This record gives sequence, structure tokens and C-alpha cells, in this order.
Amino acid sequence: MTERVVLAYSGGLDTSVCIGWIAEETGAEVIAVAVDVGQGGEDLDVIRKRALACGAVEAEVADAKDEFAEGYCLPAIKANALYMDRYPLVSALSRPAIVKHLVAAAEKHGATTVAHGCTGKGNDQVRFEAGISSLAPGLKCIAPVRDYAMTRDKAIAFAEKAELPIATTKKSPYSIDQNVFGRAVETGFLEDIWNAPIEDLYEYTENPATPREADEVLITFKEGAPVALDGRPVTVLQAIQELNARAGAQGIGRIDMVEDRLVGIKSREVYEAPGAIALITAHQELENVTVERELARYKRQVEQRWGELVYDGLWFSPLKRALDGFLDEANAAVSGDIRMTLHGGRAVVTGRRSAQSLYDFNLATYDTGDTFDQSLSKGFIELFGMSSKIAAQRDLAG
Amino acid sequence: MTERVVLAYSGGLDTSVCIGWIAEETGAEVIAVAVDVGQGGEDLDVIRKRALACGAVEAEVADAKDEFAEGYCLPAIKANALYMDRYPLVSALSRPAIVKHLVAAAEKHGATTVAHGCTGKGNDQVRFEAGISSLAPGLKCIAPVRDYAMTRDKAIAFAEKAELPIATTKKSPYSIDQNVFGRAVETGFLEDIWNAPIEDLYEYTENPATPREADEVLITFKEGAPVALDGRPVTVLQAIQELNARAGAQGIGRIDMVEDRLVGIKSREVYEAPGAIALITAHQELENVTVERELARYKRQVEQRWGELVYDGLWFSPLKRALDGFLDEANAAVSGDIRMTLHGGRAVVTGRRSAQSLYDFNLATYDTGDTFDQSLSKGFIELFGMSSKIAAQRDLAG
Amino acid sequence: MTERVVLAYSGGLDTSVCIGWIAEETGAEVIAVAVDVGQGGEDLDVIRKRALACGAVEAEVADAKDEFAEGYCLPAIKANALYMDRYPLVSALSRPAIVKHLVAAAEKHGATTVAHGCTGKGNDQVRFEAGISSLAPGLKCIAPVRDYAMTRDKAIAFAEKAELPIATTKKSPYSIDQNVFGRAVETGFLEDIWNAPIEDLYEYTENPATPREADEVLITFKEGAPVALDGRPVTVLQAIQELNARAGAQGIGRIDMVEDRLVGIKSREVYEAPGAIALITAHQELENVTVERELARYKRQVEQRWGELVYDGLWFSPLKRALDGFLDEANAAVSGDIRMTLHGGRAVVTGRRSAQSLYDFNLATYDTGDTFDQSLSKGFIELFGMSSKIAAQRDLAG
Amino acid sequence: MTERVVLAYSGGLDTSVCIGWIAEETGAEVIAVAVDVGQGGEDLDVIRKRALACGAVEAEVADAKDEFAEGYCLPAIKANALYMDRYPLVSALSRPAIVKHLVAAAEKHGATTVAHGCTGKGNDQVRFEAGISSLAPGLKCIAPVRDYAMTRDKAIAFAEKAELPIATTKKSPYSIDQNVFGRAVETGFLEDIWNAPIEDLYEYTENPATPREADEVLITFKEGAPVALDGRPVTVLQAIQELNARAGAQGIGRIDMVEDRLVGIKSREVYEAPGAIALITAHQELENVTVERELARYKRQVEQRWGELVYDGLWFSPLKRALDGFLDEANAAVSGDIRMTLHGGRAVVTGRRSAQSLYDFNLATYDTGDTFDQSLSKGFIELFGMSSKIAAQRDLAG
Repeated sequence: MTERVVLAYSGGLDTSVCIGWIAEETGAEVIAVAVDVGQGGEDLDVIRKRALACGAVEAEVADAKDEFAEGYCLPAIKANALYMDRYPLVSALSRPAIVKHLVAAAEKHGATTVAHGCTGKGNDQVRFEAGISSLAPGLKCIAPVRDYAMTRDKAIAFAEKAELPIATTKKSPYSIDQNVFGRAVETGFLEDIWNAPIEDLYEYTENPATPREADEVLITFKEGAPVALDGRPVTVLQAIQELNARAGAQGIGRIDMVEDRLVGIKSREVYEAPGAIALITAHQELENVTVERELARYKRQVEQRWGELVYDGLWFSPLKRALDGFLDEANAAVSGDIRMTLHGGRAVVTGRRSAQSLYDFNLATYDTGDTFDQSLSKGFIELFGMSSKIAAQRDLAG
Repeated sequence: MTERVVLAYSGGLDTSVCIGWIAEETGAEVIAVAVDVGQGGEDLDVIRKRALACGAVEAEVADAKDEFAEGYCLPAIKANALYMDRYPLVSALSRPAIVKHLVAAAEKHGATTVAHGCTGKGNDQVRFEAGISSLAPGLKCIAPVRDYAMTRDKAIAFAEKAELPIATTKKSPYSIDQNVFGRAVETGFLEDIWNAPIEDLYEYTENPATPREADEVLITFKEGAPVALDGRPVTVLQAIQELNARAGAQGIGRIDMVEDRLVGIKSREVYEAPGAIALITAHQELENVTVERELARYKRQVEQRWGELVYDGLWFSPLKRALDGFLDEANAAVSGDIRMTLHGGRAVVTGRRSAQSLYDFNLATYDTGDTFDQSLSKGFIELFGMSSKIAAQRDLAG
Repeated sequence: MTERVVLAYSGGLDTSVCIGWIAEETGAEVIAVAVDVGQGGEDLDVIRKRALACGAVEAEVADAKDEFAEGYCLPAIKANALYMDRYPLVSALSRPAIVKHLVAAAEKHGATTVAHGCTGKGNDQVRFEAGISSLAPGLKCIAPVRDYAMTRDKAIAFAEKAELPIATTKKSPYSIDQNVFGRAVETGFLEDIWNAPIEDLYEYTENPATPREADEVLITFKEGAPVALDGRPVTVLQAIQELNARAGAQGIGRIDMVEDRLVGIKSREVYEAPGAIALITAHQELENVTVERELARYKRQVEQRWGELVYDGLWFSPLKRALDGFLDEANAAVSGDIRMTLHGGRAVVTGRRSAQSLYDFNLATYDTGDTFDQSLSKGFIELFGMSSKIAAQRDLAG
Repeated sequence: MTERVVLAYSGGLDTSVCIGWIAEETGAEVIAVAVDVGQGGEDLDVIRKRALACGAVEAEVADAKDEFAEGYCLPAIKANALYMDRYPLVSALSRPAIVKHLVAAAEKHGATTVAHGCTGKGNDQVRFEAGISSLAPGLKCIAPVRDYAMTRDKAIAFAEKAELPIATTKKSPYSIDQNVFGRAVETGFLEDIWNAPIEDLYEYTENPATPREADEVLITFKEGAPVALDGRPVTVLQAIQELNARAGAQGIGRIDMVEDRLVGIKSREVYEAPGAIALITAHQELENVTVERELARYKRQVEQRWGELVYDGLWFSPLKRALDGFLDEANAAVSGDIRMTLHGGRAVVTGRRSAQSLYDFNLATYDTGDTFDQSLSKGFIELFGMSSKIAAQRDLAG
């Protein structure tokens, strides 16, 4: 019986060519799987038909936008996940969501191999392959660009020769990955890290410098999840989408950074993630109000490791699962409202209220009603500083 | 012989009254010490004379602005120190700088006690007293507001009765602490955390929403320290001051947050720190370019603990010293230029260049000149993901 | 109505005197509560009657041995909890178990205050009071020894004058706290940290240096909990008790250390915890076999913080709860058998087997059957070391 | 000009064959480099002559025992380095020491490549190659066993055919790596992790169960380094060697564990490291006496990461250097004496004294002379537990 390969299919030139290329290289039948995580673009049915027209023996398409928002973006919000304190893990979150569908398709269609269109020097190859080996350790992985030297030029030649129903226009200068949580752009001139980005790069965000009216939004969270905007109930997907629009219109969420890739090199990346940045900013401040100090301090370390793990492609790893156990518990009381002004590239919290608030007006106030017993401080300071003081007595004597 | 008390003196009503109040409570002679860490306001000599006029037996004043910038702000820049990911430790940094002068004065004048004007529910009392007990474990500490119930009203009555040469106008609604690294504001209406700050609170920053021209600045760092602006050599103090002016004019560095105090309560704080935020933002991105990945990842944890320690008043603690050992080593290669646009409340890095750069164009580029050997990735991914894969084989079988 | 105070009652001289002492100091009625966490000694009913005879208006006794083992010792085993890498938290674990009963009694009997017999310089006062304030924030706490200067001599005088039915013999030279998880001894001559412990101090353990036959035990764990010894099903309590006997007979579990107390001083402590040490040693090695590497590495940090929190009296804190979420998940696969030799003061694992094992003979073996593909290593090493190599290229050039 | 390859040469069959094998595979001239890190065995000059007799064009031998002890074992002692809480990094420490000599020889002799005898599934290949690429990024690395399929059988055939002056007896059942810091043993029957080790495996240690007299040793440390034994000044090397003998004679330092390798698999390892374990145990307890609490708590995390880095072959990495900055500072006060009983497999500290001690008898004692002010505790406990208490008020109300 002929071997079957499941291919992560986007509908674009490269993965369209991959269908035939893999067939030629391996003799296998190719099953194309396209997963909509909010990347926009063509209709799923158009993509499905193109896959078949390009030679796929089966083509599966899935609208995974809600699944992606609930299962992948929401944990990232709960973790305030910002790799290197900046990047909300846009592409890193979508890979495991896609992997789930690839593995399911491989099982359904009896495939032995999964193929993806990544190069051999990025993070996404790791995210695909480590994800697949954790969900289905028996599956093999191939990457035609990396393993079969399928360059862009060769792909165009292949498409033209095979008369594939896909445009072979010259490649856009931009290499883009996008989904509902954000958008990543790489392009030649940015590889000189002294060059500034240009306005032309951006699609999810307007120019923050353009004068416009501010927008004020009220975000309601329940146990760490956004559940309402301006009082209207929303799903996580709707929260992200609406804030992409509103925060994007204010130029919020642009990121330009040099980033440490898992494969050991540094790369220049430009991102835009208006909804993600607005939601994480709001979530952080609601945590400031509702999470106890020591838990909050420890959570920052957990957040960092969580972000590194997800960036590094270990979404389905045992450590990620255990950190989620911590993060769910830590979010149990993160419920309440954040009022936020969106304007000029900034998402600024201006108010917070919560039935779960640990802010105690009577303890905090310096006005009438102060219930804090200041006489406690003397003993506290003395014992809190005792070990340092004893060390100082020694060190100053020395 | 009469006991002597060194008092941390600001020149304002409260500490002016403290001079006589302490004398009455303890029978001691009071030595006033005023330290200029860039808080602005009156001339040091005016302050010195007022202390004597209010009854101090000695008065010392010190211009510690450069000392503060070099010895306290610079380590914070090297640590990218942001307590709770937001607050650049403005007041927390100044306390140990002042403590050094208090302890030196106590030694010089044979004092047995140090007094400060803090209340009993804030962080600064801890910073003063833990600092003093670490530099001079034999000194006692007193805080008239906390220990002798010196309220504002009583202070005004005392000043009027004693005819102290100080205005006893009704207190400003704002409680303010400021120095060259930033400014902190508390005030009654902010104690309702649902209330937004008003424009009137701010002094170091213009309204970021006001349309104006952008400002572009080139910041040069050497081993983590800012050494030039736009090519002109600067001291650390000058770098902070100039960026306070330029970033402040663009509305950069406003912070509004609910914060975990060391004494166990949450409080609402509004800060403005234009120079600090601009410098830390630039320093972080230069680290992205010049610091190796694993060092960078670990440094984030060290930064967090460093910030907690300093916030908690443990500047002179053994752990702080050992973390500084790490941070100095980590900053050894953080040299180079950052180009940054200051505009509309945002300090945005647009370019970076460094002789110490670890960014390797030839490894990073997807264009001609690519030297990255993609064939290495297969083995890397397989072994990198091996332990997760083996765990998956078990867990999926179970 | 008369105020009521719940007293943590041991049946000994000090807390027997406390009953009347508290009544005199406060005018309150005293309710004695004795909780059996395996400390041995007198029958609970004898203790109950003595409390009443000493003037308590009510006396409650509870056999909490199983509750203590399941609810407090087991989480410590799952966390491999060893404060300062040595001390299995014996007393620190029992305090929250006792606190639960004190708070329940206070609620049942309408008490407003809880009293305990601790001094003002140890950890246990913090564990009692922080525990109580977290379970019943409205309750007050008093400690007669600390707050009412109830010294030993005064207590003896009080008992004799009041003719309390309790021996007032001169105090044992040893200050002891013990429960089923171990035993702590302090005594005057140990306060000279150059002095060695003497054999006389120990009760749970025989002299390890005495020649005797080795004992071999098979410990079966399920999800981190000991469930069988030598194939016989046991409760957690039984596992600890049997191993106390068997490991204790081999001199296992003696600890002599200088320890950092929460109140800022260092103290000398001698412990014996044969069952705890045997169980933690076995549990650690079963984790080595069943827990994935990155999870295991991170768990060590979580274990350390968990141990610090519990040592510091924060059992009922939000951070402790969230760490438990992590630890439970991390223990999900820690099931299997550990064979261990108990002999000469050493608990030595000699074999491990588990249906959840991640040890893969075929990957590990150097003999026939080796399935490890060594060709993968070249790429792995190259990319794993890439970021260091690039940094070296820079640093060596400099 | 002919290429030159520097080979890490042991004098044994495998690396003797490597000389000719590499020459055949690559056409290069082979320079043999043997480094004595205390592995014992043959005289260095014998080894040097054998290398030449086997075809090396040059042969270098170096007595690096002191260098290894000072430069590699001492930092491990300062870090209390125990991978997975057990393994004192014996082999992991020696690899970078050897790498330094290999790189120096490559430079001296103009070699372009370094060769080592490791397989492709262990840690040592990573340690060699990551080390070499960090000291000399331009050098290539080859491993004939891994890269040219040089199996044991083929090596014997090669040696016999080439009439190499080396015994080709059947391989010992044990695969051993040893140096002055310890000894590692792997062997077929241990690959069944249920099998116990047998006495025959051990060379550095006697059977701990054999009755014998105890040995008492006084170890003096200065800034973390052992400087005297029983009052006699020693070098670090002498300290390790003497304690290897004395602790080894008491059966101390045997380790049997399942370990997480860097290449992603778990392996069974048996180690013996009597001197290392005795020194680390003593050093830890001296730290308990001389290191301030918060520094000590943080140092445990640093120690763990340091151990992981060194285990993972990243000795020459930037993070390792920065952690050393921390560890040196943390060891500055670790000076004093530890009295230790070596007996029955146990190294037990029985006394400690230090001019740098932070143990304060007067604060710790419960007897006459107590200077601890117990009245401070009330305020301390209240504020220390405040954030948990406020959280409890909320959570209990919910």
C-alpha cells in the first residue's frame, strides 16, 4: 500500500508545490490540511479545491479560530506571555494548534509522515516537529525546503512546468506569518538591524503618530479570561478580534526587536499584535490588584519559563503541563474590570475594580479611615533586616 | 554628654518641625543632613540655614547628584530594574544614597541615632532603617511621625508656636517624592483605584497626547552605562537629565499602577520617569543584540530579584552584592549605539549597532550570503525534543 | 459575655500553666485543644482530663495522625521538601495541621482569640499566627511566654501555688518537638556549634555505627504517594511509621545543622527523621526514572520555594496553593517500585522499576539492541552550542 | 601542506587505533595529546612514546592535576555542584580542562581539527565539541567512533593488522572514566535499572558496610577553598587526594542513579567520589554558618543552574562566567573549620567554627545571655503575613 504524507497546507505557492514535490521525492500520496487560525486570506473551500487540483489525494480544512483563541491564546494571556519581555508568541502559539489537526488527519488517513513548509533555520520547524513527536511519536517529519532543497526558484519552475493553478508572481519582499493573535514580518532590508521599519510593513496597525481621537474600552476578565468588552459578553476570539481592530486603529502593539532563536542565532523581527498587547496589559494590571504579592513575584518567573518553552516549541511537554497547573491556580481570582485608554500607540490602564480585589482602601489610605497599625512596623523592620544586619556587623568588622 | 541624633532633612515643614520635636522627645541634639539627589527645589545653602534656624546644632548639605546617578541609577539601568515590570525604583534607589550620608554624618558628629520623616506604613521607613542597620549596626533609628505620633496638624501647631521660619500653609493635596531618576505622586483621589490620573499630577512629563514633532536620539552605551547622547560624551547624570527633558517633553515614562508594598498592602502609585524609561528601553534592546541567549534568559530572573531586593530596602545586603557580581559580568559586552524615536509617550528603538554584536547577518539572512547549515537542524530537533517525545510515548500509551 | 480563648494544649507543664495564666491576664475562659500528630506520650483522654483539672472550661482532643500524614507529610514527600537541602520540615508541617483544629474549635466555641505556647524568637510562633490569620483573619493571637513574660520559673511557681495536677520537676535539658514525621532537639550544649551531638539526644534512631544486619525494603509509590511496603498495602501514616521503625533501627535520618530561622537568626538544630528521609530518598529516585528532564529541572526550584514557604509558616498562602498545582501535576507519573537497603545510617536505592518509566533500555544500552541514532548528535551539538560559539567568536576577537 | 588533527589521546586501545584511523579517513597528520587529570594508570612518558609508535607525528603530554583541581574542581566545590542533587560532575569537569590543552596544541601545531574518542550518544561529545567551539570557533571536530563507525571490533582488527604496540585483549566489562575528583562506571548489567551494583565495581571506595574505626578530619576553608586538613596546609589537589583516600577507606561517596543526559535519554550511572562528597558536605555546612539567609537561598538556584550548565558542556559559556561572578562573591566569607567524622559510608559534620560566623550565640541561646528582643516578633509576624491574610479574607468570603 502506498505511503501517505499529511502536509501542512496554506494554499500558497510553496506548499502547493510541496504536494507534487513530496510525491516525486517519496512516492507517497499527499493529504493537504489547511487550518484557519485567523490568518485571513482566501476562503477555506477555495484552498481545499486548490489542494486537490495540485494533486493532493485528500484535502481537509478546518476553521480552528475559536479553538486557537481558547486553547492557545488564552493560556498565553493568563501567563502574560512575552518572550524576551516583548513578543506575545504569535507564531509560536499557532504551531501546536495546527499540529493537532495534522496529527488527527494523519491518524484518520493512515499517514506515516507529516510535512511542513518551514526552512531549516527558524523556530517553526522545531515547533512543528517537536509538537508532532509529542502527540504522535511514531510519525516521521519532513520539510521539503530543508530536506529536499526546494528553493523558491525551483518551486516556481515546478509550478510552471506542472501548470499548477497558482500564481507564480515574483515573491513579495515580505515574509509574513499571521493569525488572530498577531502578525510577524521579516524582510531583506530589516536584516540590517540599523535600518528602521517603514510604515509599509504594517497591516494590523495604523501609524501611531497620526493624530486621532482616543478610544476607551472596558475589559472584563473572569478567572484570567476576557469575557466582556464595554459590558458586552464576548468569546476570547471576539475579544482578540475586536481589540485587534480598536487597538490596531490606534497604532498599538508594534514590536521591533532582535530576538534569540532556538537554533542559536539572533534574528531581527517586526511584529504587530494590537489585541494581544492590549489584553496582556490589562490582565497584568488586574493581577496587580487581585494576586497576592508572593504569588505574583513567583508567577513572573513561571511566566518567563512558560514563554521560553512555548517559543522553543515545547507546547506539549510535561513541564508546560505542570506550569499550566500553577498558572490556572494563580488566575483563579483574576476577575474584574479594567478601563483602558487606547491612543497613540499606547494601551494605558486608567481604572480597575474587582470583587476579588486585594487592594484595601482602609489599609492604603493616608486620610481618615486609616486602619493600618503603624506600631507593627518597628518589629517588622528589625526582624526583616536582621540577617543583613548581622552580616553587616561581621563584614564591617573585617 | 548630650546624645546626638542625625536627621534626614528636606527643608520642608515636617522635617523642620522634627528638629525641635526630636529634641523635646529625646533631649538630644539634632544634626540636620540634607542630600541633593536631584529633587530640585531650594538651594542647598538656604536649606542648611533653615535647619540651623529651626534649632539644629549642626547642618550638613551634600550635592550627591553624580554619586546617585553613578552609584545607584546606573546599577538599576544595568539590571533593567522595573519592579512589577513597571516601576524603575525611583525612591527605592535614593534611600540608600541618602543613608550613606546620614551614617557618615553620625560618625562624624558622634551621633547614636538616625531619624527620618517617614510614616509607619510605607516602604521608605524600611529602606532607611534596613540601610542604616547594614552600614552602622550600632545606630538606633527613630521616625517621629511613626514613633512619636507627629501628625501634620500637630506639626503645623508646633511650627506656629515655635515660630519656625517655614511656611505652614495647608498641605498640598499631593504627596510627592522626586529625584533625578523620577517622580512619585500619591494623592487622595488616586486612592480610589477606579479613578484615572489627571494631567495636573505630572511635572516631569508633558501630555503624551498633545501633537508635536518627534525627537530622535542616539544613545551610546559602554559596558552597560550610557556614555554619549547624539555623539556628545555625557556622564550618567547628564544622560538621565537630558533624557528627562527630551523624553519628558514627549510624554514618555508615565506609570500608573497598583503596587505590592513590602509591609504587605497594595497601594496605588503614579510615577513619571522619562529618562529612566528611555535608558532602560534602550539598554534592553542593546542587550538583545550583545548578550548570549542563555545569559539573557537567566539575567531576567536576576533582574527581577535585584529589583525586589532594592524595592524591599536591602540595597546593602549580601545577596544584592552577589547579584551585582553577576550583573557586572553580564554587562561586560553591552556596548554600542541605540537609535531611538521619542514621540507621543513612546520611546521606540529603531536601530542598533555594536562592535560587540552577536547578530550575524550571514547566519540570519534568507538572502544571498546565508551561511547557516540547515542540515544540522534535523539532528538538533530530534535530540532537543527527545525527552518530551519519550514522555509522550509513555503518556499516550497510558 | 465572657471572652473565650482557644489554647494549643500539649498536656505539659507550660501549656497547663497557660490555662490559668491566660485567664488571669485576660479574664477570658480558656478552651484547651490537644491534637495528636504522632508526638507519642500520654493518652489523649488523660490530657483532656488534665486540661479540665487545670481550669479549662472545655477541652478538645483529636487524633489527627492520618490527617497529618495524608494532608501535610504527603505533599512534603511529593515536593522532596528539604529546607536548606537537609531538614524535612518536621515541626513546620505539624503547625498548620494543628492550626486547623484550633480554628475549628474557636469557631465551635465562639472564641475570639487563639493562644499558643511558643517563644518570641522561633519559627513556630509565625507558623501558628500566620496560619491562624489565613484561616480565620478575625481571630487574635496571643503567646503567654512572649506576650506575658511567662518564664519557666514563673510557670513552676504558678503551678505549685495553684496546685495544678502536673509535675513541676526541673525541666529536661532538652527542648523537644516531635511528631510522626520526625523529631527536633535543642539543648544548651548544642548552642556551642563546635560541640558534637551525643548519643543521648536521639530517640527515633539507633546509633548508625553499631554493627547490625541490613534491612531491605520495597517501597511502592502511586502518583507520588507511598502505597505499599514489601508488597503490603499501607496508608501514608503506616508507611511513615513502619519506616520510622525500620530506618530508625538502622540509624537513618539524623541531621545536625546550622539553620536560618525566619526571624533572621541562625540556630543549631538536631533532627531525626528516619521515615521521612527514607521516603524522600526513594521518591527522588523514582522521579529520576519517571519525570521528564525539563520538568525535573524546574521542579527542583519549585521544591526549594515550597520548602521555604512551609518553613516560613505560609502553608495556607496563595503561592503555596499554586505550587501544589504544579507539584500534583509533576507527580502524576511517579508510580512504581523502589528497592532500598537500610543500613548503617544510609538509605540506599538499589533498584527501580515502573510502568511509567522513561528509561528506555534500547536507547541507553551500548550493547546489542541500541536504537539511538548517533548521527543526530552532530547537528544537535552544533546548534545547541551555537549561541556560545558566536559569543566566543566575538569575545576571543576582542 | 598536510592537514593536522589533534587527538585527545588516552593511551588505550581505542584512541591508539584512532591515530591511524583518522589518518586513513582524512589523510591528515595526527598529533596525540594526553592530559593527566588524575586518572591514574600509566606513566605519561610511556603514553607519549606509544602515541608516536602508533603513528602520531607529534605527542604532547601534560600533568594537569593541579590545574584541574584549582581551575575546575574548586569552582564546583564553591558551587556545591551536584547534578540532580547527587552527581559531583566528575567527568563533566574534566572535559573543559582537557579541551584547553587540545586547543593549545592545535594552535601550537597548526591543526585545523580536533578529534576525540567519544560515542554519539553521551554527554562527553557535547562537552568536547561545545568546549572547543567556544575556545577556538574555527576548529573542526571529529569523533571516529561516531563519525567513521569505528566499533570496538573493528578497532581490534585494525590494531592487530597494523601491529600496534597495544594489547587487544577483550574489552573489560566496565566502561570507566576517572579522574582525581571521582570515577564513573557503566556496565551491561547495570543497564537493567532493577539490578543492584556489585562490590566489584568500585575502586575509589571500600565497602561502607565493613566494620572499621571511624576517622575524624578537620577541614579548613578560606573563601570557599579547602586550605588545610587537620591543620596541615594543603593545595586543593592534595585536599581532594587525601580525602579520596580517607573518605574512600570509609566507603563514602558512592552514587547509583538514573540520570538525565543532555541528548534526551535517561541512563544508569554509578559513581564514586569520596573526596568530592566529603568536601562539598563540609563546604555546605560552613556556608550554613557564614552565608546570610537570602544569599544562601538564592545561591541554591544558582548552584543548580551552574551544575546543569557544566553537565551540559557549557563550561566556557557567557552564563557560566556570570554565575561564577555571583559564586565568587558568595564565597567571600566562607572561611573557617569543619570537623567531620568519616565512617560507614557517611561524612558527618560534627562541629563548625569561623571568624566569619553569622551564628550569634547570644541571639540564639535560650539560656542566660539571651539578647533577642522577643517583643519585635508581634509586629514582624503581623506584617510578614499581611498579604496572605488579606488574600484569606477575600478567599474565605468567596
